[in-house]
Amino acid sequence: MIRVGIVGISGFSGRVLLDILLRHKDVRVTYVAAHATTGRVDAIWPVFANRTSLVCAKYDTAAAIDACDVVFLALPHTESMHVAGPLLAAGKRVIDLSADYRLKNRALYKKWYHADHTDPRNLARAVYGLPEVYRAQIKKAKFIANPGCYPTAALLALAPLVSMYPSAVTSIAIDAKSGVSGAGRKSAEGLMYCFVNENFKAYRVLDHQHAPEIAQYLSRMAGKPMGLMFVPHLLPVDAGILETIYVQLNTKIGAKGLADCYRRFYSTETFVRFLGPGAQPELRHVVRTNFCDIALVGGADNRSVVITSAIDNLVKGASGQAVQNMNIMCGFNETEGLL
Amino acid sequence: MIRVGIVGISGFSGRVLLDILLRHKDVRVTYVAAHATTGRVDAIWPVFANRTSLVCAKYDTAAAIDACDVVFLALPHTESMHVAGPLLAAGKRVIDLSADYRLKNRALYKKWYHADHTDPRNLARAVYGLPEVYRAQIKKAKFIANPGCYPTAALLALAPLVSMYPSAVTSIAIDAKSGVSGAGRKSAEGLMYCFVNENFKAYRVLDHQHAPEIAQYLSRMAGKPMGLMFVPHLLPVDAGILETIYVQLNTKIGAKGLADCYRRFYSTETFVRFLGPGAQPELRHVVRTNFCDIALVGGADNRSVVITSAIDNLVKGASGQAVQNMNIMCGFNETEGLL
Amino acid sequence: MIRVGIVGISGFSGRVLLDILLRHKDVRVTYVAAHATTGRVDAIWPVFANRTSLVCAKYDTAAAIDACDVVFLALPHTESMHVAGPLLAAGKRVIDLSADYRLKNRALYKKWYHADHTDPRNLARAVYGLPEVYRAQIKKAKFIANPGCYPTAALLALAPLVSMYPSAVTSIAIDAKSGVSGAGRKSAEGLMYCFVNENFKAYRVLDHQHAPEIAQYLSRMAGKPMGLMFVPHLLPVDAGILETIYVQLNTKIGAKGLADCYRRFYSTETFVRFLGPGAQPELRHVVRTNFCDIALVGGADNRSVVITSAIDNLVKGASGQAVQNMNIMCGFNETEGLL
Amino acid sequence: MIRVGIVGISGFSGRVLLDILLRHKDVRVTYVAAHATTGRVDAIWPVFANRTSLVCAKYDTAAAIDACDVVFLALPHTESMHVAGPLLAAGKRVIDLSADYRLKNRALYKKWYHADHTDPRNLARAVYGLPEVYRAQIKKAKFIANPGCYPTAALLALAPLVSMYPSAVTSIAIDAKSGVSGAGRKSAEGLMYCFVNENFKAYRVLDHQHAPEIAQYLSRMAGKPMGLMFVPHLLPVDAGILETIYVQLNTKIGAKGLADCYRRFYSTETFVRFLGPGAQPELRHVVRTNFCDIALVGGADNRSVVITSAIDNLVKGASGQAVQNMNIMCGFNETEGLL
Repeated sequence: MIRVGIVGISGFSGRVLLDILLRHKDVRVTYVAAHATTGRVDAIWPVFANRTSLVCAKYDTAAAIDACDVVFLALPHTESMHVAGPLLAAGKRVIDLSADYRLKNRALYKKWYHADHTDPRNLARAVYGLPEVYRAQIKKAKFIANPGCYPTAALLALAPLVSMYPSAVTSIAIDAKSGVSGAGRKSAEGLMYCFVNENFKAYRVLDHQHAPEIAQYLSRMAGKPMGLMFVPHLLPVDAGILETIYVQLNTKIGAKGLADCYRRFYSTETFVRFLGPGAQPELRHVVRTNFCDIALVGGADNRSVVITSAIDNLVKGASGQAVQNMNIMCGFNETEGLL
Repeated sequence: MIRVGIVGISGFSGRVLLDILLRHKDVRVTYVAAHATTGRVDAIWPVFANRTSLVCAKYDTAAAIDACDVVFLALPHTESMHVAGPLLAAGKRVIDLSADYRLKNRALYKKWYHADHTDPRNLARAVYGLPEVYRAQIKKAKFIANPGCYPTAALLALAPLVSMYPSAVTSIAIDAKSGVSGAGRKSAEGLMYCFVNENFKAYRVLDHQHAPEIAQYLSRMAGKPMGLMFVPHLLPVDAGILETIYVQLNTKIGAKGLADCYRRFYSTETFVRFLGPGAQPELRHVVRTNFCDIALVGGADNRSVVITSAIDNLVKGASGQAVQNMNIMCGFNETEGLL
Repeated sequence: MIRVGIVGISGFSGRVLLDILLRHKDVRVTYVAAHATTGRVDAIWPVFANRTSLVCAKYDTAAAIDACDVVFLALPHTESMHVAGPLLAAGKRVIDLSADYRLKNRALYKKWYHADHTDPRNLARAVYGLPEVYRAQIKKAKFIANPGCYPTAALLALAPLVSMYPSAVTSIAIDAKSGVSGAGRKSAEGLMYCFVNENFKAYRVLDHQHAPEIAQYLSRMAGKPMGLMFVPHLLPVDAGILETIYVQLNTKIGAKGLADCYRRFYSTETFVRFLGPGAQPELRHVVRTNFCDIALVGGADNRSVVITSAIDNLVKGASGQAVQNMNIMCGFNETEGLL
Repeated sequence: MIRVGIVGISGFSGRVLLDILLRHKDVRVTYVAAHATTGRVDAIWPVFANRTSLVCAKYDTAAAIDACDVVFLALPHTESMHVAGPLLAAGKRVIDLSADYRLKNRALYKKWYHADHTDPRNLARAVYGLPEVYRAQIKKAKFIANPGCYPTAALLALAPLVSMYPSAVTSIAIDAKSGVSGAGRKSAEGLMYCFVNENFKAYRVLDHQHAPEIAQYLSRMAGKPMGLMFVPHLLPVDAGILETIYVQLNTKIGAKGLADCYRRFYSTETFVRFLGPGAQPELRHVVRTNFCDIALVGGADNRSVVITSAIDNLVKGASGQAVQNMNIMCGFNETEGLL
């Protein structure tokens, strides 16, 4: 039984983390904090009444070090980089759900997050927590940069293709659709019920901060620079991401061969379900689970393929994957708390 | 004041048609029919109570000919082709909202609609009712094949580009999302509330019957064969289509120049609104209107562009456009009943 | 053709008013203003692009007087009472959509709206704009207090019963459910998509400011004080109010007799549809219309009755009814712009 | 570790049951069946892929007896009464989620369910599985009639009042609102997305089969006949019931005293949360949990009270409560699998 802490309980990821960790048989939640909110957790999130009597403290480094073996940071980007360092220095395992340690290039970080990175040493050490691709490194890690929600769905959808046929891919267009919780808990007019319900729109077209994150890790998998077009959209649902990915190829690769490649790549994975012919991912099959469902349809010309993938942005795209990473790091059953 | 009829009042398009035509100052609805439903229209659609006392008859050719100057066919595909001929032979103007007269190639029609086309003579004569592209022909037409919902949004989004730079386009991927009314009024399990709400999925991936319709008219505009990838999705909203279109170009065409081309192309059109920089179409701005909103964002490499377009599938994508076509054919103000 | 102005275009009621008035054949919108917003109306509400080139001004009394014959005030409560007076003094007709002139008792106004009423003279003169009950007074009025959304649905549902059987009613419980637009255009956390979607709750239980408004006009109809219990709820829909009203009676009044009474009461009304046996109001049948649908089911003991009524809170519950009042005041066809 | 079976996996309750039981540490699901559906469970409900390899059999009594210690019947009413008997005769514990064993009066059963009851012996023996009221009997039971969804929310909301002040209550009106899953998995037009979304309506006004079930158990708690008015409504959400209950009293009972009575009544209950002053139940706080949230607001006259209660219709209103009953019967921790 290890002791875990959650920093950032007032956000959606914090709430989902606590929900998972309260059911996890190998951990005890011993510390819950936030930067601005304090008080009983069930006053912040009434759904926890009669489930926990935890109290949210104002975040304090010494208290966190004292109370926890593992700390989850569910903070906004540019905040985590001020919190992670001292915890790591004290020998704690840290899993950061923010974007602060994902882009390895500091200039790129500054461009997209409008802040200088203040913790370059740990930026270099952070392991990207995508277990289906980087499990070996995660096992040995002390510090995890938990992937972004859009990148999780995109990278799992493209990893087999890009790893096996890095030179065949000539263009990638990712059409991503996300539920509203992906925008976090904030009161912007664009997130009001009357502006989201019965609506649908693209936003930050070819200008979203997750595009460079996807490009960085695709390039790493391919062993060469990979570009892409990325357009996110806002779906009128609470949770869930579905991405439809259009890939052009410079050689004829049959859809059947590609499907075999995907099936092999994910054959031993619990949380990635590569669907059989004719089936398509649906948000309903993955929301509130840690699964990523993937399907693949080949173009008639054998020179194009459409890959679809679906996850819950708050679970496999955030808190569930964070717990999966903890399970791997700590030697627990990888699925504990997640099925 | 001309006399108009609606055949197929029990479907969604029929309902929207009647709603528009009851407000139209130049027409009187003198005939309403369906194949399976009869009785007072406000029993079929209670929303019409106290607005009309029209009664829906079982469809009868002679009665329709007797009662109407213009007939709208809001029937399922493979039914319209048995109804249009006699009306045309009697000198009536006909606007067909089904797919029966859109694909000019009968083999293609059979492949996608699983029926032999029984009315090839009128198939050849039917004018494709996309006013912003084919207004001159519509003006002189007796018989309109009203465009499909997905094709309307796709063709309006691509017409300026494909007309001006037919040789520059190397690939087109259309990611289309439609509200549920696009599937028509039928009780399939996949259309039940509990299977649509909080859900999202692709369907008929690279296998939808609107893809050849789009390809046929794009090719006609370009003056050369145009291919495309087309993936439709089901949005958890009543109405509205948004398409996100990824175009690869073989020459550097600046986004600014392209935007000018679009602005010019649509400068005199009431129902197409080409949005300024930074703005994006939203379903909320077009649903229950006859507008099509379009935006364009160029890739950093100047060799790709993302075009987004939005319409109401039942209005500009069906009944509204049908009335727009009638207005043009009959010499009414083109916007009558539609603003 | 009269000249009309809208003060408060940035709110939902203002938007719906403009939408109706742009289609109204007897008026021209000559003035649009707001307290905090300025600029092109189609920048405030993109839905109006290519429909109007009106520009929203900062509200100015002299300009309004100069430009308009009739002025609609779609302002928050406690603001209208500072604006109406000068317009009335200048001989303009004014229709106030706020709550400022509905409660005739100033102490009650202060209790519920937390402000002293500063315009008691016009408070006394304002005619309550519920046409189906007060048409005669509206015809002669210069100044209309347009009813609240909940009161409209409640009063139309109860008017026949309370007028005919004032002594028979022993208790009234109104269970009201409203779509989110009823809360206005504001960015409170409780109105965020993720806090409303897939949710439902009561609010201000037995403590809502519309309860005294309903009680005041019920009492006036009954000719004696009428009490009631009123509980509003927030529905996860954009628009629409449905009220389920439980009435206990001290004498046996058969449901059939009651139904006859309702049918007679509303027999000449276009906008109230009293439904036949077995039918129930649905939001879908009234949303985006000026109709109020009403049904009545009697208890087995003949001493109780359940009345249900449905309206669109922004149309019959606000802007549509306001236009209906203008039509009556100005001698237009009462349904102009509203069918 | 006991062996449990689910009969009726293709319905919503069956799916939720399996989801809970797969996480339950004291049971193993050894049998899954349905009347019409067969095949892998993850083909019926793709959400279970990679979670279970169970196969759904056509229901067979001998197989069920052989495979299970406890059997859950998640069948439509009038089907369970043919299945329960043989299982009970074989010594199995049975929990019936249908309505077949709830109404003790066979004439009443026939009136509401349009079938003769064929198993009167077990009807007499069945224990009503509302743990917070009947825990002692459940502990000793072999056969549980699991309460209906509406009755669960109504009875928990009224139990303290009716038990403590049976003579004070003069009238009860229950205004109930349910999510769409309450209607079960069937393809009726009224349950289509386009007929439910953005809609709301009452149905079966004063004519719903759960009214006599509520009346029967209220009367039992009160020790005297209790009548009530009951009006259900269809909410545009997947899951959740909220009931707003209007009670008239013949004596002045202060809201504070009543609240104390409720707090005491539920002080040791995990799954009923009596909310503090000012708080109101929300579907979001109970959906996908086994909790029932309850609040109480007293009328100004001290002679009326409004009680609100909320549950998930598929969890506390069906499958969760069924597992809670199993836990009690089998001596497991009452909350196992449910927190």
